[in-house]
Amino acid sequence: MAAAAPPPPPSPVPEAPIDVPRGSTPMGYPLFARIRLAHPTDVPHIHKLIHQMSVFERLADHCSATEASLAATLFTSPPFKSFTVFLLEVSSAPFPNDAHSSNQFYHPTIKTLNLDLPIDDPESHVFRSSGGDATVAGFVLFFPNYSTFLAKPGFYVEDLFVRECYRRKGMGKMLLSAVAKQAVKMGFGRVEWVVLDWNVNAIKFYEEMGAKIMQEWRICRLTGDALQAYHDA
Amino acid sequence: MAAAAPPPPPSPVPEAPIDVPRGSTPMGYPLFARIRLAHPTDVPHIHKLIHQMSVFERLADHCSATEASLAATLFTSPPFKSFTVFLLEVSSAPFPNDAHSSNQFYHPTIKTLNLDLPIDDPESHVFRSSGGDATVAGFVLFFPNYSTFLAKPGFYVEDLFVRECYRRKGMGKMLLSAVAKQAVKMGFGRVEWVVLDWNVNAIKFYEEMGAKIMQEWRICRLTGDALQAYHDA
Repeated sequence: MAAAAPPPPPSPVPEAPIDVPRGSTPMGYPLFARIRLAHPTDVPHIHKLIHQMSVFERLADHCSATEASLAATLFTSPPFKSFTVFLLEVSSAPFPNDAHSSNQFYHPTIKTLNLDLPIDDPESHVFRSSGGDATVAGFVLFFPNYSTFLAKPGFYVEDLFVRECYRRKGMGKMLLSAVAKQAVKMGFGRVEWVVLDWNVNAIKFYEEMGAKIMQEWRICRLTGDALQAYHDA
Repeated sequence: MAAAAPPPPPSPVPEAPIDVPRGSTPMGYPLFARIRLAHPTDVPHIHKLIHQMSVFERLADHCSATEASLAATLFTSPPFKSFTVFLLEVSSAPFPNDAHSSNQFYHPTIKTLNLDLPIDDPESHVFRSSGGDATVAGFVLFFPNYSTFLAKPGFYVEDLFVRECYRRKGMGKMLLSAVAKQAVKMGFGRVEWVVLDWNVNAIKFYEEMGAKIMQEWRICRLTGDALQAYHDA
């Protein structure tokens, strides 16, 4: 879907289960969040995240991605040159500085969140990261675009998604900021994405991050049979 | 500019100069049109076309592209893998099948237009093609995008421009069709671009080409100082 899923959806903060000890430290509950480049071994998690995003957007019947089709089309070029995925992981323990997460292309972004309540992740076993003792909480998929007026590349953010139990904690902002920071680092001129015009919460969030909403432009899409008709054009 | 310039602008068909012989053949005036991959030697023409496009869009003060900045950012990867330019050339003589226009990546599209009137091109000397005895009439700049729902690449058309005296002759359609055909050939899932919501002529044209206008989506853009602020994010 040509869609950046809105990072702060209007879902309530999950309540703490009754049997969870509270206030065990003066800092609340620390949660370590890390953004790293995705690897081909992350495809099963990326596939699950894309499926959850399609359900969230009520477009699950439009989602035909499989692990095989993702594996065949992603990771075909060096990071940032084409389709690139940042994975967001969380852990209750600090992240090690290991070769799996850090390489010549990208040094992970790490942030410590001090939560008032621990997060109950009902799917933590399904989203156990290939990188070790962490849980995959979200992702952003982006790729270079180009502005002829600037004569500069930029990044287009195709998808931004944070799993439900991790929302409203600044993780969507963390993912989008990581893309913006990378764009600046590479001397790029823009970061762009799309939003649904009725999603006022997402629009407000994006404007607070410094984005302008381009009201006059409409996306034109040629796909399916209408595209196939150009086979013999 | 993140803009596909509308191919059939509401400009009048140019009138034939008085001293031009008319009806010299029963076929009218044949004009040979060719679409080929642009080369680095075409940068001066691409630069002029981008500048004309910015004037047409009344956004000339937003256009900072130079020949040097275009040369530094285009042609950095094989065609269709990243930013790609198709050049539209016209000639009163048939095009030869030469190595300059045809290569392993793309075999040119050639079409013969039978015009009722010859075209008076006041800038033909400026737009003499590097490929020989032809005139550059327009271009399209596009690059791969990605649909996670389809798990397939597509093409995004950043710019589509036909010089004024060559408009309303099907050349915009020829350029866009060439991109669509290439997308089908590569097994891609979509071709997308943007249009201004008040440009009813362009919208009608695109719909006739099979495109759907996505009414609900808005583009978000982070650029300039707002983007630079992420340097230390």
